[in-house]
Amino acid sequence: MANIATSPAPSYTPFPPSGVEEVVGRKRFEAVYTVVLDDLLDNFRKHNMPEKVIEYCLHSMNYNVPGGKLNRGLSVVDSVAILKGRELTDEEYFKAAVLGWTVEWMQAYFLVADDIMDSSITRRGQPCWYLLEGIGSRVINEVLIMEGAIFQLIRKHFRTEPFYVDIIDLLHEVTYQTEMGQLVDLITAPENNVDLSKFSLARHSTIVVYKTAIYSFYLPVALALLLCGFPVEKRNESDPDYFKIALDILVPIGEYFQIQDDYLDYSGTPEQIGKIGTDIVDNKCSWCINTALARANPTQRAILDANYGRKDLEAEARVREVFCEVGVDAVYVEYEAQSYARINALIDAVPEVQNPNGDAVLRRTVFRAFLDKIYKRTK
Amino acid sequence: MANIATSPAPSYTPFPPSGVEEVVGRKRFEAVYTVVLDDLLDNFRKHNMPEKVIEYCLHSMNYNVPGGKLNRGLSVVDSVAILKGRELTDEEYFKAAVLGWTVEWMQAYFLVADDIMDSSITRRGQPCWYLLEGIGSRVINEVLIMEGAIFQLIRKHFRTEPFYVDIIDLLHEVTYQTEMGQLVDLITAPENNVDLSKFSLARHSTIVVYKTAIYSFYLPVALALLLCGFPVEKRNESDPDYFKIALDILVPIGEYFQIQDDYLDYSGTPEQIGKIGTDIVDNKCSWCINTALARANPTQRAILDANYGRKDLEAEARVREVFCEVGVDAVYVEYEAQSYARINALIDAVPEVQNPNGDAVLRRTVFRAFLDKIYKRTK
Repeated sequence: MANIATSPAPSYTPFPPSGVEEVVGRKRFEAVYTVVLDDLLDNFRKHNMPEKVIEYCLHSMNYNVPGGKLNRGLSVVDSVAILKGRELTDEEYFKAAVLGWTVEWMQAYFLVADDIMDSSITRRGQPCWYLLEGIGSRVINEVLIMEGAIFQLIRKHFRTEPFYVDIIDLLHEVTYQTEMGQLVDLITAPENNVDLSKFSLARHSTIVVYKTAIYSFYLPVALALLLCGFPVEKRNESDPDYFKIALDILVPIGEYFQIQDDYLDYSGTPEQIGKIGTDIVDNKCSWCINTALARANPTQRAILDANYGRKDLEAEARVREVFCEVGVDAVYVEYEAQSYARINALIDAVPEVQNPNGDAVLRRTVFRAFLDKIYKRTK
Repeated sequence: MANIATSPAPSYTPFPPSGVEEVVGRKRFEAVYTVVLDDLLDNFRKHNMPEKVIEYCLHSMNYNVPGGKLNRGLSVVDSVAILKGRELTDEEYFKAAVLGWTVEWMQAYFLVADDIMDSSITRRGQPCWYLLEGIGSRVINEVLIMEGAIFQLIRKHFRTEPFYVDIIDLLHEVTYQTEMGQLVDLITAPENNVDLSKFSLARHSTIVVYKTAIYSFYLPVALALLLCGFPVEKRNESDPDYFKIALDILVPIGEYFQIQDDYLDYSGTPEQIGKIGTDIVDNKCSWCINTALARANPTQRAILDANYGRKDLEAEARVREVFCEVGVDAVYVEYEAQSYARINALIDAVPEVQNPNGDAVLRRTVFRAFLDKIYKRTK
């Protein structure tokens, strides 16, 4: 922990953070990465693993874990600060950041696994890991090691905490649900076997909630609640169920986020979104196609059936034309307004109650921070 | 549990079991599989997963989990009975069998993952799962689900036990070490890049201990110890470390088992071992090649370098000739005798102490049962 304890503690970053504070916050968070990575490599050394194996792990972790936007990991730290209502001590910051990195590690292995399953080419501006020489399907073992690393970290830093077992149960539950979501997605929308009769807005919702919303939005806050001593089980009948309150707000936020993502893949320019949208040609079970299917007349439906999921620019153009005809853009604008209002109402209804120790409060700002970060985003 | 509780309880099976008792023991153990499988599918239903997804999971689990020899799973049940020194009640049997099935589930996902990483063709007499239509690299998500299923089962059946957290820590530790072993193997012996300078008997030992011995031999006994209330941490300075005693005997047993496996791949007839050995053509880091490398003169070494790991029957024949010249067979006979004597001496030194509750004893028979099952096996 030495290099964390001695780094200057920036004051707590309000939402939305200014650019400078964001960079400082990220750097402090990244410093914790080097500590937990050292923990993992030390563990390999403790087992007398050959030096080549340790070098390989170092390369694999550095390639796959720290290069993302870090939103999920940082949101654990931010949520803890909001719940406590004050700047964190160095030790509190460190523990929150370790939990944050477990979410980033999880995100990393989900993405590494998704990329080979989806035959993706690039990720975070570099070739997908599985495409590097000599890797291919061996990526499976690395995915398992990245997953296992999470529990090594948790054990090292939280084994003596009363909520240790709750963290583990939470991580197992969330990863299992995410894997369920991925399975539904794989069965619903295999890349090379287009069958739009399997699609529906309900199916889209199942995929989005399970595959994305729970681990990306609920998990960071649930970890923050545990670290702040909010109990998983009610001690009195009149106690609120803190975790259910969080779930019931963060799942709709996650669903809204993914629908934005789907819509931006269709409507965003490459300058905006930093990539060319490929959901239509890749047969993705996106909000746009499901919205179009729900509104298409028989002629439009036939066009969608004949052209969706084909690696062909003209087929893609015909699909986009139907999206336009059925009014996907207007539906999205309406969805966004309604969704924002609905989630705000849910947040307004949160009871701002203290935890049993009286040193943290379930504040509405925790949820508002997520919503404000994504509302009307265009990238 | 209904169908377990009402099935007749066979009397405790001594080692080696007679054929009839073995069949009864297996059938009773398999009955628990149907119960835990129902638990898993019910959990999918609880999450409102689509029926197609549930059917797919059922098919995947049935294809991959129950069709093996079940040695690992059955050895949990057998070990619990030996530690308790009596026939198990229906409830005790059920709990031991659930833990046994978690080891079988682990074995299943390791094999499913290994098969795609090794480009294997068949497993347990049927095509490898990843080769089935539409699966391929999507197997990764199923591997993760099979792994997650283990923790679902443990949570359902052991959440309120005082040793719940110890079971989870044990499973995480063992799987992580197994994945380390797999990584060493992948880096040491990639199928298409032969480099015998990476091989050595020491490297072989690291791979075997980590990749096979710990989960196949130590894990079943460690689970049995936990279920019988043997504590992970010493309560008095004078207490024995039950888990270290088990590890220090079962790891050498596992190493001996794998060396037998390697030797049988080279020396066994297809009638004996039920397959044609392919370790030489597949560039496997086997005990035989490492023994040969340690004894080869420069001419023999050059033959091994030029011919090992080639998909070519003549190259294989040249390698086998060197194995013969350096006396691999005689070294094996000597290794087996020494190994058997050494492990027996370790077993004789085990203190037969009671657990703190006084309702189970760490008996030498637990370890002897494993050793007797594998000593001088020829298949």
